[in-house]
Amino acid sequence: MAMERLVVIGGDAAGMSAASQARRLKGPDELEIVAFERGHFSSFSACGIPYWVGGDVPERDDLIARTPAEHRERGIALRMRTQVTEIDVAGGRVRSRDLESGAESWTGFDKLVIATGARPVRPPLPGVDAPGVHGVQTLDDGQALLDTLARTNGRRAVVMGAGYIGVEMAEAMLKRGYEVTVLNRGEQPMATLDPDMGRLVHAAMDSMGITTVNGAGVTKILTGGDGRVRAVATENAEYPADVVILGVGVEPETTLARAAGLPLGAYDGLLTDLAMRVRGYENIWAGGDCVEVLDLVSGRERHIALGTHANKHGQIIGTNAGGGYATFPGVVGTAVSKVCDLEIARTGLREKDARAVGLQYVTATIESTSSAGYYPDASRMTVKMLAERRTGRLLGVQIVGREGAAKRVDIAAVALTAGMTVEQMTTLDLGYAPPFSPVWDPVLVAARKATTAVREAGSR
Amino acid sequence: MAMERLVVIGGDAAGMSAASQARRLKGPDELEIVAFERGHFSSFSACGIPYWVGGDVPERDDLIARTPAEHRERGIALRMRTQVTEIDVAGGRVRSRDLESGAESWTGFDKLVIATGARPVRPPLPGVDAPGVHGVQTLDDGQALLDTLARTNGRRAVVMGAGYIGVEMAEAMLKRGYEVTVLNRGEQPMATLDPDMGRLVHAAMDSMGITTVNGAGVTKILTGGDGRVRAVATENAEYPADVVILGVGVEPETTLARAAGLPLGAYDGLLTDLAMRVRGYENIWAGGDCVEVLDLVSGRERHIALGTHANKHGQIIGTNAGGGYATFPGVVGTAVSKVCDLEIARTGLREKDARAVGLQYVTATIESTSSAGYYPDASRMTVKMLAERRTGRLLGVQIVGREGAAKRVDIAAVALTAGMTVEQMTTLDLGYAPPFSPVWDPVLVAARKATTAVREAGSR
Repeated sequence: MAMERLVVIGGDAAGMSAASQARRLKGPDELEIVAFERGHFSSFSACGIPYWVGGDVPERDDLIARTPAEHRERGIALRMRTQVTEIDVAGGRVRSRDLESGAESWTGFDKLVIATGARPVRPPLPGVDAPGVHGVQTLDDGQALLDTLARTNGRRAVVMGAGYIGVEMAEAMLKRGYEVTVLNRGEQPMATLDPDMGRLVHAAMDSMGITTVNGAGVTKILTGGDGRVRAVATENAEYPADVVILGVGVEPETTLARAAGLPLGAYDGLLTDLAMRVRGYENIWAGGDCVEVLDLVSGRERHIALGTHANKHGQIIGTNAGGGYATFPGVVGTAVSKVCDLEIARTGLREKDARAVGLQYVTATIESTSSAGYYPDASRMTVKMLAERRTGRLLGVQIVGREGAAKRVDIAAVALTAGMTVEQMTTLDLGYAPPFSPVWDPVLVAARKATTAVREAGSR
Repeated sequence: MAMERLVVIGGDAAGMSAASQARRLKGPDELEIVAFERGHFSSFSACGIPYWVGGDVPERDDLIARTPAEHRERGIALRMRTQVTEIDVAGGRVRSRDLESGAESWTGFDKLVIATGARPVRPPLPGVDAPGVHGVQTLDDGQALLDTLARTNGRRAVVMGAGYIGVEMAEAMLKRGYEVTVLNRGEQPMATLDPDMGRLVHAAMDSMGITTVNGAGVTKILTGGDGRVRAVATENAEYPADVVILGVGVEPETTLARAAGLPLGAYDGLLTDLAMRVRGYENIWAGGDCVEVLDLVSGRERHIALGTHANKHGQIIGTNAGGGYATFPGVVGTAVSKVCDLEIARTGLREKDARAVGLQYVTATIESTSSAGYYPDASRMTVKMLAERRTGRLLGVQIVGREGAAKRVDIAAVALTAGMTVEQMTTLDLGYAPPFSPVWDPVLVAARKATTAVREAGSR
């Protein structure tokens, strides 16, 4: 019998986790593993780029979890700078092009993993390709931005977008000494939060010296006589800029999958089953930023590009492709971020998410501290909790605060996964000691208030 | 109809939370509330005393959540320095003595709350009452210790006991410039952890300059010519001491309850039902450090003296006594602490707890970091996880590390409450961003390893 071959498209978190886990379960005498990566790097932390640009992380290579050579030492034939250009599902093969030589070839597969990731949304604006305008998705992007910063000695940075990438890049540019303006199309920064919580982020960014302009629809990027960016224009104003950073989100990179006729969802992400197999296919798996995931709270598919999901997907795919068994039940939508010393966290549904799926809810918002109020440097945080009307089931939590705020969202993430009610949460046995929490943890205080809100909303 | 009277014995966390919550539900025209406290203070944070002694918390009064006057303003007749000396259950009355005047009187009750707390274990050692030997349970204790420190200008402190109070007081005395020796009867400090995790605490304390002597059974406390403490003797050695701190734990203060014939458990704590009523009694509740609580993991009653439980009990008792409805389902045994920058956390069962109740288990211990490995100041932590053999149900987690380690135990506390398996935990959607976590949170890494251990232990 010929040896089986596993082909992996995409050499980053999901793809290489899958390859590595399959290799752990099956040795090179049982399974051949071939992986294709079009870029220059494998297994790097895109989430770390803002901290590299900002100077917290000294070296680009610090962000590389495993080099191509290390993967090859583990028996994975990783072909760098090689782009897969076609998936022939019926023929069980992929076509690839060596981006250095231009040579094309076909590679047959018994099992296929699609981990093509996401691509940054690059708005089709005049000037978006001008020198000085930078995305921050790949290490090459990060290096290009750092090169620009070193070369131009600028003073003013405009960040387009006020989501995670936007606010993290605002921090990075602030740390590099720039005057930072964040242009935000929405009504508040951090649209992944409800507007009332986003306002807290806005106020905190103001106090850090980051200017946030809400309702700012960019119309074009203006260039100077040297062809370089000089300003960003909205309908109402012009914002001078020596450098512009695109932080307007990503979308699934599923061009290949679409051409191959594989099933895509409402966000253009691949649809999979619980074993991360592409729906309807026995021997094709997909994971990471190119798939949609089930939101366990809303019961809907969502697209969430996050390294932590990509790694889990890869682990599960590799287990299954390697002959084991593992499933990915879904997500609850947890995300944490920070801007300087401001911590931001969310899990579950926002108010508008709940409304969109027909859930009625009550909300409770409380202020508390990360440690006992009398403990030195106890820092304030605001916790907002959503609970389903009548049942009291936890629907979501948002937290904005300082040190010790963000990771408290994990309490809610587990409670959401377990389907707890907010009343059940009021008696959770959470860690208490004065340096770590008030005697009622802020999450418990929110749960108590939400419990009261559920009761007051009545049983109609 | 005469107005109902609620009598509360004990003016600290459980008692005054109960009184306050009952008052919220029923006004002074519906319910009379009388509370007795034998000490000088109401509603104070005993857990905060080490931080007051160590200087982190500047003033004694910072530890007082609510003064007697504040309680009285809220319509609670709080009688300070008044000790209840007898509960006449059949007669529905309590006898009390005014500790200032010596006057005794009876007070009738329709509803009774017993919140008599715990008393520090004071070993019956020669010299234990000598000047310079201090407990740290009450604010008076803390003040007496601070007075001693101010007066004696000593250099060497011996702390008896290496549990939470012991290690926190070791930190406090170190901060005050003392040479600190911790005498520990057990084989490792922090007996609430397994010995292998306790060893990590021991090593960290060594590196801070705190000397820990294990297997040190104290035989007597030696005094000098002035009658003051001068050393602590074990069977093997003498440890010079200018001040000695008793940190050897507490036991339920249930002298009154025992005399009244109320049901006590194996640890001499009052036994209650889910509504925190003393078992078998319709109109008597008990909560806080004087009760035993159901451990949801082992199915056994335990005695755990912790302010966070006392506050929850009080809240629940007050709700029920005030005509509402609330229950306390039990605990999972979560506790967090720190010694200087070392964070210590546990929840669920230790190995010996599991064995004691007939549970077979596997363990997994991993090392990871609190933030992405490349993020500046990523601090190491060790996570140990216990899972039931065969079912893979989570049984317990212990964490020893630096900043960001301890409160991660909350993830496990919620998972224990929900009855999750370690395999279910591997896909928990926990907050990830480089400043807050590696792409696999340390708890997930431990869950993965525990899952493998469960699988390898087989299905026999």
